[in-house]
Amino acid sequence: MQGQTIYFKNKPKIISAAAIAGPKECEGVLREYVDCALSDDMFGEKTFERAERKMLLYAVNTCIEKAGFTPKKIDAFISGDLLNQIISASFTAREIGIPFLGIYSACSTMSEGYLLGAALTDGGFARNVVAATGSHFSSAERQYRYPLEQGTTRPPQSQWTVTGAGGAVISSEGKGPAITSATIGRVIDYGVSDVNNMGAAMAPAAADTILAHLRDTGRSPDYYDLIITGDLGALGSRLVKDLVWERGADISANHVDCGEIVYKVIEDEFQGGSGAGCSAVVMNSYIYDKMTRGGGIRKVLFAATGALLSTVSSGQGETIPCISHAVSIENWGEED
Amino acid sequence: MQGQTIYFKNKPKIISAAAIAGPKECEGVLREYVDCALSDDMFGEKTFERAERKMLLYAVNTCIEKAGFTPKKIDAFISGDLLNQIISASFTAREIGIPFLGIYSACSTMSEGYLLGAALTDGGFARNVVAATGSHFSSAERQYRYPLEQGTTRPPQSQWTVTGAGGAVISSEGKGPAITSATIGRVIDYGVSDVNNMGAAMAPAAADTILAHLRDTGRSPDYYDLIITGDLGALGSRLVKDLVWERGADISANHVDCGEIVYKVIEDEFQGGSGAGCSAVVMNSYIYDKMTRGGGIRKVLFAATGALLSTVSSGQGETIPCISHAVSIENWGEED
Repeated sequence: MQGQTIYFKNKPKIISAAAIAGPKECEGVLREYVDCALSDDMFGEKTFERAERKMLLYAVNTCIEKAGFTPKKIDAFISGDLLNQIISASFTAREIGIPFLGIYSACSTMSEGYLLGAALTDGGFARNVVAATGSHFSSAERQYRYPLEQGTTRPPQSQWTVTGAGGAVISSEGKGPAITSATIGRVIDYGVSDVNNMGAAMAPAAADTILAHLRDTGRSPDYYDLIITGDLGALGSRLVKDLVWERGADISANHVDCGEIVYKVIEDEFQGGSGAGCSAVVMNSYIYDKMTRGGGIRKVLFAATGALLSTVSSGQGETIPCISHAVSIENWGEED
Repeated sequence: MQGQTIYFKNKPKIISAAAIAGPKECEGVLREYVDCALSDDMFGEKTFERAERKMLLYAVNTCIEKAGFTPKKIDAFISGDLLNQIISASFTAREIGIPFLGIYSACSTMSEGYLLGAALTDGGFARNVVAATGSHFSSAERQYRYPLEQGTTRPPQSQWTVTGAGGAVISSEGKGPAITSATIGRVIDYGVSDVNNMGAAMAPAAADTILAHLRDTGRSPDYYDLIITGDLGALGSRLVKDLVWERGADISANHVDCGEIVYKVIEDEFQGGSGAGCSAVVMNSYIYDKMTRGGGIRKVLFAATGALLSTVSSGQGETIPCISHAVSIENWGEED
């Protein structure tokens, strides 16, 4: 470990990736990249929670299939989600029967999953690991905010939880983009307490981790084709660029935020996508495709952010602690 | 990986451990082994949640101090807890500033923490890692069950969430019991839906993982001085012994359950301790002491169990998926 950064000497590969997304999410660029574009966000289920779980199971099974494996070939399933007690991940693990490691990092769960999956395979502990997560707009609204039926007005700083799930098979063998290093985030809290302004709360954590990564590796931002954040939204994306700039690095030329890509963002209305599913879907469909099928993207730094609050902590007057884990993913021309 | 079991070639050591527990917990055997026996379970705070967090912070800081380190020497902090969005762990991580990996495995969080801490140090990714967790009776009751003020009657199958926290420094160097292997649990669900009978729900998961560990390693139960479960309670402990016995192994001579040790159990009233803090406190005080200070315990298999339900999943009629991760801890005579 150098600073906050660990290196994967054996360069574990992301040998397959899969994603599924809801109707609103598939109105934009994602539609042609996801494995399943839902026409109904209930996915044939009776509750939002069951629909969320079914999407996660779909993403897990699909990335395993695309790797040419059966679940028996997978040594560990690493997952978590936004619902209390990560029930989407746990119930999915019950269905597939793979040894399960539960994680929680709010909307940065995908990057923590990549990180731990890479560590387990690189360290020789496992051959094939699945890392996956997802979220559902309606289950998140019900748990974190207001009943949908109430029709509460959303302030313009708010974001929209992505309905979708994504997952990847990380393997010690095979072809695909390699996870070459990862920077474990510290918890950063600039004192933001507005739960409708997650972009502002999370941007400092993203900046802290991106800067730590650049410092630890001695790289400049232009080492990467893209520096990808998870769900800062339009406002948060401006903030992270400013915060990094203030501390001497310029990511304005190659920064992209998954939350900004997902929807057509009209900033007077809302700031873009959020939720654990946001970067999970974008990374495991659009970005993975651009890295493996001639899209010209070879090196990305993926720094998803998570807001580590709960309704209880907010209700008790606490500010919002945030975290960002960064994963360096590089492909050296081994394209499909 | 062999079956579900991973091996740690470099044998990372648990170089220090610390624990803190509440007044009720310190009425029994634990009092003389914990680093701090609280006389007031509010720990000087105004809310249960803040008291829980303060205990976790105490355990983390104390195990770091006992290792002779400052927090700057710790490469990663691995933690989770029972509260929604693991706020105790996240807010503790904010205080100490160590790179943080959030995990969730309900009451088996301590064994998942040991497991991942051992993997990160053994794999050469980190030198020193802290794994810790805790729980608080009153915050758990409020979140999972009824307001305390309601004075709801507790059925005799119920358990009592331990007020306490425990943590350990796992290191690639130094002296102490070594983590030599770990068995990652699968999610097991025998269809129990009674949220007041966690011992019955979790026993099959413990049995599954203990049997997987014995099968993968080719060991018989008597390889271990103790086979320790986390919080099955009195009834669950009988069940796990029966379930393992039915499948050809006998752990009745050396099985111990942390939930049975903590309190004086009167089965007509309740079954013993539970909660993430239960095994965290017992392992990082009583058991660690017995392994390092001439207590005659050299080899233990620690298989904590977690019930992966939420109030929403139970309310929607789901049964209780459970998991158990097992960690093999061995000391070869390097006593203090």
